[in-house]
Amino acid sequence: MNSFRGGTGGRDSLRQVSTEPADAQVRTIRVGLLGCGTVGGALVEMLGERGDDIEARTGIRLEIGAIAVRSASKNRGSGLSGDLLTTDARAVVADPDIDVIVEVIGGIEPARELILAALANRKPVITANKELLANCGQELADAAAAARTDLLFEAAAAAAIPIIRPLRESLLGEDVSRVMGIVNGTTNYILTQMTELGADYADALTEAQNLGYAERDPTADVEGYDAGAKAAIMASIAFGAKVAAGDVYHEGISNISAADIAFANRLGYQIKLLAIAERFETESGSGASEYEIGVRVHPAMVANEHPLASVRGSFNAVFVEGADAGELMFYGRGAGGRPTASAVLGDLIDAAGNKIRETYHPVPGGPAVPIRPIDDQSSAYYLNLEVADAPGVLAEVAGVFGAHEVSIRSMEQEGLGDEARLVFVTHEATERDIQSTLADLAALDAVHGVGTMLRVIS
Amino acid sequence: MNSFRGGTGGRDSLRQVSTEPADAQVRTIRVGLLGCGTVGGALVEMLGERGDDIEARTGIRLEIGAIAVRSASKNRGSGLSGDLLTTDARAVVADPDIDVIVEVIGGIEPARELILAALANRKPVITANKELLANCGQELADAAAAARTDLLFEAAAAAAIPIIRPLRESLLGEDVSRVMGIVNGTTNYILTQMTELGADYADALTEAQNLGYAERDPTADVEGYDAGAKAAIMASIAFGAKVAAGDVYHEGISNISAADIAFANRLGYQIKLLAIAERFETESGSGASEYEIGVRVHPAMVANEHPLASVRGSFNAVFVEGADAGELMFYGRGAGGRPTASAVLGDLIDAAGNKIRETYHPVPGGPAVPIRPIDDQSSAYYLNLEVADAPGVLAEVAGVFGAHEVSIRSMEQEGLGDEARLVFVTHEATERDIQSTLADLAALDAVHGVGTMLRVIS
Repeated sequence: MNSFRGGTGGRDSLRQVSTEPADAQVRTIRVGLLGCGTVGGALVEMLGERGDDIEARTGIRLEIGAIAVRSASKNRGSGLSGDLLTTDARAVVADPDIDVIVEVIGGIEPARELILAALANRKPVITANKELLANCGQELADAAAAARTDLLFEAAAAAAIPIIRPLRESLLGEDVSRVMGIVNGTTNYILTQMTELGADYADALTEAQNLGYAERDPTADVEGYDAGAKAAIMASIAFGAKVAAGDVYHEGISNISAADIAFANRLGYQIKLLAIAERFETESGSGASEYEIGVRVHPAMVANEHPLASVRGSFNAVFVEGADAGELMFYGRGAGGRPTASAVLGDLIDAAGNKIRETYHPVPGGPAVPIRPIDDQSSAYYLNLEVADAPGVLAEVAGVFGAHEVSIRSMEQEGLGDEARLVFVTHEATERDIQSTLADLAALDAVHGVGTMLRVIS
Repeated sequence: MNSFRGGTGGRDSLRQVSTEPADAQVRTIRVGLLGCGTVGGALVEMLGERGDDIEARTGIRLEIGAIAVRSASKNRGSGLSGDLLTTDARAVVADPDIDVIVEVIGGIEPARELILAALANRKPVITANKELLANCGQELADAAAAARTDLLFEAAAAAAIPIIRPLRESLLGEDVSRVMGIVNGTTNYILTQMTELGADYADALTEAQNLGYAERDPTADVEGYDAGAKAAIMASIAFGAKVAAGDVYHEGISNISAADIAFANRLGYQIKLLAIAERFETESGSGASEYEIGVRVHPAMVANEHPLASVRGSFNAVFVEGADAGELMFYGRGAGGRPTASAVLGDLIDAAGNKIRETYHPVPGGPAVPIRPIDDQSSAYYLNLEVADAPGVLAEVAGVFGAHEVSIRSMEQEGLGDEARLVFVTHEATERDIQSTLADLAALDAVHGVGTMLRVIS
């Protein structure tokens, strides 16, 4: 196979350069790229633009050795030699002249099979594939550990925002209790438009689709599946737990109305779709600390003073709480070709350096930790009821909360002709208790409608 | 020397544990701690609390082998064996039973000499010493490179906020144009109190001193020296440049009045003390890109919509702009014993793992880049003049701006009895031009007073 940048000779070639890397020798690392869509194409461009700078800073020449695509005949833009393109991805991962694999095909198969083959050949793998990691992450991590090579995936959680490396390295000694993020730009854009322009959900979605922020079929974004996959990845890394996409409880934003947002704003909150991974300490019989993990995605009311409340438009942010580090937040672009490729490139340089130094980043282990069902997780809640405007109704409603031991933090009443709207914010209660409360409230004759229920984050 | 945690036998001892690290073998790494003040003490406590968790996740047992202190007789709190304490720091860095050195003494000497000795002995070093790194960073980096061992200092830039590792690893392939941070909690606390309570500078400083956020002699914080040291470190890492504390232009916040803050707020800005490291592309004769670096610390007006504007109280944040990653922000606790120790612990686990795998993180190189003097750097500016309330004054004032080719973006006039206040925001201009403009304005008879000049960030 020809190399993308010619003239450097064979594998492991060393050549002198006039700039001054640490040991004045440049090592060439040949990259096998699987997939050349938005992210892969951006990566190829960036390697063309920055290859010399990267070489000057690291002593590593990153060279595209092969690009596996579905159709080799498509025009892939200028600067890309046709000789590099192949439709035989299996040959790329098996090629002894390829040192590192970058997987940006997406989806489960054939990505899974190709990554496993690459790892079995002791080739480090960089992937941006959140769906694959959220479903088969443990299998891939085990394969990387067995091969003692790198499996890096910074781009899979929040694209350009460095969150995996900080969680996996900087915070490895920290007692992290909660990781909470706005990790889907489409829904944050929609909610921001609804908040700032008073737009309806349907109109904001249509605009997001017209701008290319949302897909024609927006289900994966608006129903929280995309955020759920990222939540599973972040929970696995933050807590060393084995969390898969199926373990994540999720609700989307399609039920949120302009009225809900206006109410939230009036009470001092922003509505955000949050991915939350939380660690709960439990008392074991022996008195030793044991843990459970809760992982969920749902819209939430976030207090205006909270750093996540000011994350607007298509920006993402991940908020981390640690016993000693305190509150941390990582903010930036969580999607897009170039931001995603930027994270892939950081991982690629890292893996290339490790390959040259014959080392790798071991994946931190952790004991198997049970997943706590959503019913047993606690939160404060916002509830919104339409009730008959008659004496005794509030007492009856309050009685239902009391019967389920849900304590009311604040209540606001508003006249609506011959009806009234009651807006409640509760103290912490379990999901089970709030759901029973809602069911009993809906059964009351005086309650004409039960509006959106939202968890409250302060 | 006795070890902090007994019973594990000699150096390099391996023992089986019931949890499941990757290869079911635990390696012990002995830590030599230089200094046991707030940060060192917190680190010792955290190793006591988390040692088992860290071992379960990494297979590494971190053991304090020796603690060098100035006075061994002081009570260092419970859990700390007196046998570990020594006043002979040189013996600790020379001790073949010590694998890794953590330096939290602070100041230039003896910290510099001890770190160089440790690196010469091929012991990885973790330091939180911003003063030393800002003044002698290049010497230490060269020594680490020569010894092919780790010199890690996440804690030195913004304590618990992971910023060095993301800049050095995640963003190594990124074209970073600017790093801009609120990196001093004392001044941000003072400015927040002035903003939210309308407090005077002197009162806010006194309160910060009473709460322990500011020193009795607050000069290092309020005049920007502390932020300047951090700016030098971040510039060096972000741009691979050799920037020392002396290269940093700095102004502090002691001139900022409650009136300046009220004006800024009215115009839609917050006043923040910013540390800014910027890379400027210059045209070389050959047409190739060349660069200059500008590093400066000064108060600035930050537009309310900017993510840095909402960083309140003693919190810190670093905002990074990259060509492809886009805008990133890292937010958290930039000071304090436990937050700083948390960052040290992350580095310590990293260095211990590298030591075991016989590898290290090479320091990215970079060409020598000239420092651009402050006079040649550009910004938008806010100016505030007290002038005679008479016809023709505005024309005269505007003429001075024009003579220096400083273009006015907005002007606001306010009556003050028989005087008027003119508030200007300019378009981008060089510092040299704005300073000449200010000098000429001050010389006008109609100008009775020139108020605070502030750079404007949008």
